[in-house]
Amino acid sequence: MARTPGRHLTPLFDPKSVAVVGASDDPAKYGNAIAAQVLRAPGRRPVHLVNRRGGTVLGRTAAPSVAAIGEQVDLVVLSVPGAGFEAAVDDALACGARALVAITAGFAETGATGRARQQAITARVRDAGAVLVGPNCLGIADNTTELYLASGTFAPGGVALLSQSGNLALELQLRLTPYGLGFSRFVSLGNQADITLVDLVADCASHEGTSAIAVYAEDFGDGRAFAEAAAVAGKPVVLLTAGRGTASARSAQSHTGALTTSADVVAAACRDAGVQLVATPREMATVLAALGTQDRRAGRRTAIFTDGGGHGAIAADAAEAAGLDVPELGEPAQARLREVLWEQSAVGNPVDLAGMGEQDPGSYATTIEALLATEEVDTVLLTGYFGGYAASEAGLGEGGTALSVGELEAAQEIVRAHDGRPKPLVVQSMYPASPSCRILAEGGIPVFGATEDAARALAALTIREPAGPAGVPPLPPPAPVVTDPGYHSVRALLTAAGLRFPAARRITGEEQLRAAAAEFDGPYVLKALHLLHKSDAGGVALRLPDEASLLAAYREMDARLGAPAYSVEAMADLGDGVELIVGVNRDPRFGPVAMVGLGGILTETLQDVAFALAPVPAARAERLLRGLRTAGLLGGVRGRPAVDVAAAAEAVARITEVAAAHPEIAELEINPLLVRPDGALALDARAVLA
Amino acid sequence: MARTPGRHLTPLFDPKSVAVVGASDDPAKYGNAIAAQVLRAPGRRPVHLVNRRGGTVLGRTAAPSVAAIGEQVDLVVLSVPGAGFEAAVDDALACGARALVAITAGFAETGATGRARQQAITARVRDAGAVLVGPNCLGIADNTTELYLASGTFAPGGVALLSQSGNLALELQLRLTPYGLGFSRFVSLGNQADITLVDLVADCASHEGTSAIAVYAEDFGDGRAFAEAAAVAGKPVVLLTAGRGTASARSAQSHTGALTTSADVVAAACRDAGVQLVATPREMATVLAALGTQDRRAGRRTAIFTDGGGHGAIAADAAEAAGLDVPELGEPAQARLREVLWEQSAVGNPVDLAGMGEQDPGSYATTIEALLATEEVDTVLLTGYFGGYAASEAGLGEGGTALSVGELEAAQEIVRAHDGRPKPLVVQSMYPASPSCRILAEGGIPVFGATEDAARALAALTIREPAGPAGVPPLPPPAPVVTDPGYHSVRALLTAAGLRFPAARRITGEEQLRAAAAEFDGPYVLKALHLLHKSDAGGVALRLPDEASLLAAYREMDARLGAPAYSVEAMADLGDGVELIVGVNRDPRFGPVAMVGLGGILTETLQDVAFALAPVPAARAERLLRGLRTAGLLGGVRGRPAVDVAAAAEAVARITEVAAAHPEIAELEINPLLVRPDGALALDARAVLA
Repeated sequence: MARTPGRHLTPLFDPKSVAVVGASDDPAKYGNAIAAQVLRAPGRRPVHLVNRRGGTVLGRTAAPSVAAIGEQVDLVVLSVPGAGFEAAVDDALACGARALVAITAGFAETGATGRARQQAITARVRDAGAVLVGPNCLGIADNTTELYLASGTFAPGGVALLSQSGNLALELQLRLTPYGLGFSRFVSLGNQADITLVDLVADCASHEGTSAIAVYAEDFGDGRAFAEAAAVAGKPVVLLTAGRGTASARSAQSHTGALTTSADVVAAACRDAGVQLVATPREMATVLAALGTQDRRAGRRTAIFTDGGGHGAIAADAAEAAGLDVPELGEPAQARLREVLWEQSAVGNPVDLAGMGEQDPGSYATTIEALLATEEVDTVLLTGYFGGYAASEAGLGEGGTALSVGELEAAQEIVRAHDGRPKPLVVQSMYPASPSCRILAEGGIPVFGATEDAARALAALTIREPAGPAGVPPLPPPAPVVTDPGYHSVRALLTAAGLRFPAARRITGEEQLRAAAAEFDGPYVLKALHLLHKSDAGGVALRLPDEASLLAAYREMDARLGAPAYSVEAMADLGDGVELIVGVNRDPRFGPVAMVGLGGILTETLQDVAFALAPVPAARAERLLRGLRTAGLLGGVRGRPAVDVAAAAEAVARITEVAAAHPEIAELEINPLLVRPDGALALDARAVLA
Repeated sequence: MARTPGRHLTPLFDPKSVAVVGASDDPAKYGNAIAAQVLRAPGRRPVHLVNRRGGTVLGRTAAPSVAAIGEQVDLVVLSVPGAGFEAAVDDALACGARALVAITAGFAETGATGRARQQAITARVRDAGAVLVGPNCLGIADNTTELYLASGTFAPGGVALLSQSGNLALELQLRLTPYGLGFSRFVSLGNQADITLVDLVADCASHEGTSAIAVYAEDFGDGRAFAEAAAVAGKPVVLLTAGRGTASARSAQSHTGALTTSADVVAAACRDAGVQLVATPREMATVLAALGTQDRRAGRRTAIFTDGGGHGAIAADAAEAAGLDVPELGEPAQARLREVLWEQSAVGNPVDLAGMGEQDPGSYATTIEALLATEEVDTVLLTGYFGGYAASEAGLGEGGTALSVGELEAAQEIVRAHDGRPKPLVVQSMYPASPSCRILAEGGIPVFGATEDAARALAALTIREPAGPAGVPPLPPPAPVVTDPGYHSVRALLTAAGLRFPAARRITGEEQLRAAAAEFDGPYVLKALHLLHKSDAGGVALRLPDEASLLAAYREMDARLGAPAYSVEAMADLGDGVELIVGVNRDPRFGPVAMVGLGGILTETLQDVAFALAPVPAARAERLLRGLRTAGLLGGVRGRPAVDVAAAAEAVARITEVAAAHPEIAELEINPLLVRPDGALALDARAVLA
């Protein structure tokens, strides 16, 4: 599944000629649907229908084989029974095919035998210098080159849809249409035997006709490469994936032979790569509708603007639930608003016309102009009735005429005001399809019917950190391989990387224990080594004041556990300290992924942890730590002093750098990392080799 | 705002005659819209239009005053300028009006003067034995009695809508229509000067034509009475309210003179009363659509059933996000499913037809029958393509015919299967408006287009605890009033209620300190009294081993703080203990509300607290404690013993009973409540008088 950089995909998306093998007149056969589609652009390029029985298909003469066509064919679609698949591939490659789209199923998704068969075919395709999409896919389409090789038609537009599910692609199409969004390309990923999600994201990134890349994937292939490709795409990448819950993970494993990557890892990779992660088709459509035209790096201070208090209050809650801030406006902004509003209008935020709109629809525009102008907010959300005056279903009496005219004019003024100031403006309207709202939508201001959709859309246009996404950190060159995962060897590895540990000696008997005790003062810690969960097994004794108690603890522990070796260590002063856990796990898809969180006895209970692709630079590590739910503890609570977060971040940077440089280490963990006002100290470490 | 029990509302919802004062031909006047509406049912009851200028309105002779009508009028709508309001009220009451609907604004929502004016009018109305809705409202409607006294028409149905916002009422109407839901009644609450939300919930509870009560409220009036009325309504009550965020709270305060009750308190009251709390109009429509027909006390084990893996995985995540469980099915259920499914179908949960539906739409029905039959799940969620085969927009070729017929038959079989077994079944379809989905909807199976809506709907049909909502606990009779909020007086109050404290003596000098030390052994605790935040002020000294160190601490503390008195206490053994915080705050709307949570230095940081209406019985208190995010600590972690949760729950029951019996106590708190394996001990207590 490794990414082959810069695969040449022109034969796939703009072939000189096309053949559909398995073209059929039988509407129950998929080859019938594809044949019907490919013929929609007859003038664009030579199209050949192939059916082993020859005769005619859809009224055109069908060739019995690709060879029988008698000329080179650039792209060949294979929609044949499994038994004939290899022969069809050879036939196509022999005729100079440079791209294959394999509909046929029965390969990796069916088990080991199928996987082996798939690998053999892929090797043959690559040896021939061709590319292959699928197998077990539904085809592809490219509206920018009039290439239609999938059942169903996709409205033209800027969204490249790369999907592992046909039904979800269909639902996304249904959901994007109301927003006036369409598709540049559609690729059904199938088993990704040759061409992978990564290749396609990279190609769509440089595809002129594509303004946004929408992905539904369960199998990311090389997840890290996907994140890298998305991070440098230069256009929005929106990812819909499943597997947050255990249930969907079970499902994904039974689907397209996919390995679902753990939700935390995917979320971390998306955060770092700047990928918009969504959970449902509806959320994906909402985010794509928002990303269309507007500045996507706004801050989160949002003005809520309504014409009826109820909608304002509801929208303010929805905005905060979506991660936006709704600050009370300061005196300058309030004064400016009072100039254009009624006395009874609310100007605090939410801003409420309180009836003024009904008298003068122009007040919508003047208020939005004022809100776009103020430096006190980064974004504006208009919510409520706007659109109703010009909406036939509003059913206003004769008074409606003047009002609806005024509303239409206001909509145009709003578009003008927004054009002048690139500040995100999103609208929730009870009448999203009304003429006034259409003016807004055509003017690049997304309009939604549901408050939560408008809030989610606005959130998609903002960023939490001014610096933007962290990006995908490059992996350091591999360091000399570690072969001994023993405690003291791991301590040595991390100490060499600059991490601080208390003094410690590995001992195997009472004589060495006495020697160790003589080297440094108590209180001492005694640890039994080579046990997986030392403390749970009673293999750790703390606060041993002197050599005598150390010896006693050793004898008791050795009698009970008989561990092959022990560690005598200087007991650190835990006072005013906070215990963190810092670990790096090597994910099969996304490579080394760092985890930081609150340590000690609350670790499992609170599960207050944050993830990021490793290695994690110190500045990024500090942001992760300060983003923890329990970050308040680091700042000091109840009169405790603040701890040295910078030192903790530096420690995170170093352990993640070490882990990233050692592919042979599956897990590397410091738990606890004691952070005190005067620095950070690793009290225990653990490594698991791959 | 106090609730007047059992207000007689027949004159309001089914008056013998109606007069509209302020009826007008001017379409810009609200009196014009109401006059037009009231005339829609001319035969039902005498209708009089009143305009002080007389003449004609809408082609009918208008009376210059209610008196001029010359007969008793049962209900009078007042849509007149503020200046003439009192006169119009007197006119109406003089003519025997038993119900008034006051559209006119300019009262409590404008400030103190308006509030006083409103109170005077209300007193007059009540003295006359009449009822009043409003002022500052948009009118009322009752489809079951053909009473139309608000602008706009409401489709008839079973939902009684009580709303403080006209626009939200309009949006809800737009959102309920697609689900085939309509309204029995609509009441615009306005300022609730006389008739309150509570009166209306109680009346709608006994209203035959009402099957569900939908409320949008910012001002709950007597919130506790609202919760009580909802708890005994015997039909679903769905509450849409704002104020979770600070921003919407600001907005609510500037709207309808409302006091927004804190979100935690509202949520707790809704949980106890069994009220469905929603955050947006869309969520309210979703929940109402679900509550229509089905069993609402199902468990949360959900089977996800799809015909394409992608939708199954997405829906499983959405279901878990909505609070449902998606357990892997056991061998019996899987075996039963294998009997009816293909070999390649997934039977683990999500259950996936994996293409079978396309060959045999009947497999949808047989699978759902099997899932409704198994004891392993409580609810079923069908998600994906179903509906597409019979949907014109599916655009299938000739093969569509047979498939669509099969799908329509399957829909009917699904309805039959579901009728047989009252187990909640909710459907998400890409084609919710398709003929097949209409069959399901008409058969009482709600169908949604969005996965998250279907999941939310299913969650609304389930309950977390088999026992159901806790109900609104009755308040105990008031106990003798507490006048001394001092520490030792509060200790005495709680000790008398059965709570345990360590030994303690109040002292004011060194002699009393020595005497106290002689009474019980150390280690000691010394507390400075009459300081609001003792520990932050350095007014608490712990672990004083003996009298000497106690005395030293006293001298240091007294020199520094000069507190009027101190408390000498026996130091409790904190080992193996968990510190909780238990408090009761008296909410102005909902009365005494209990809070339990993790205490100690993590309290503010984690904000891991739970709320319930007080008093809280021990069994309920234990469920609250075990529901905390950090409940794991109570069970013992990392080999620590479990603590005595029952004793903690008993302590919660007692302090909440005390607080509920003392209306004069605004806040009563024990922090920390030390819970150990051998019981619970209150280490500090605090009371604030109202």
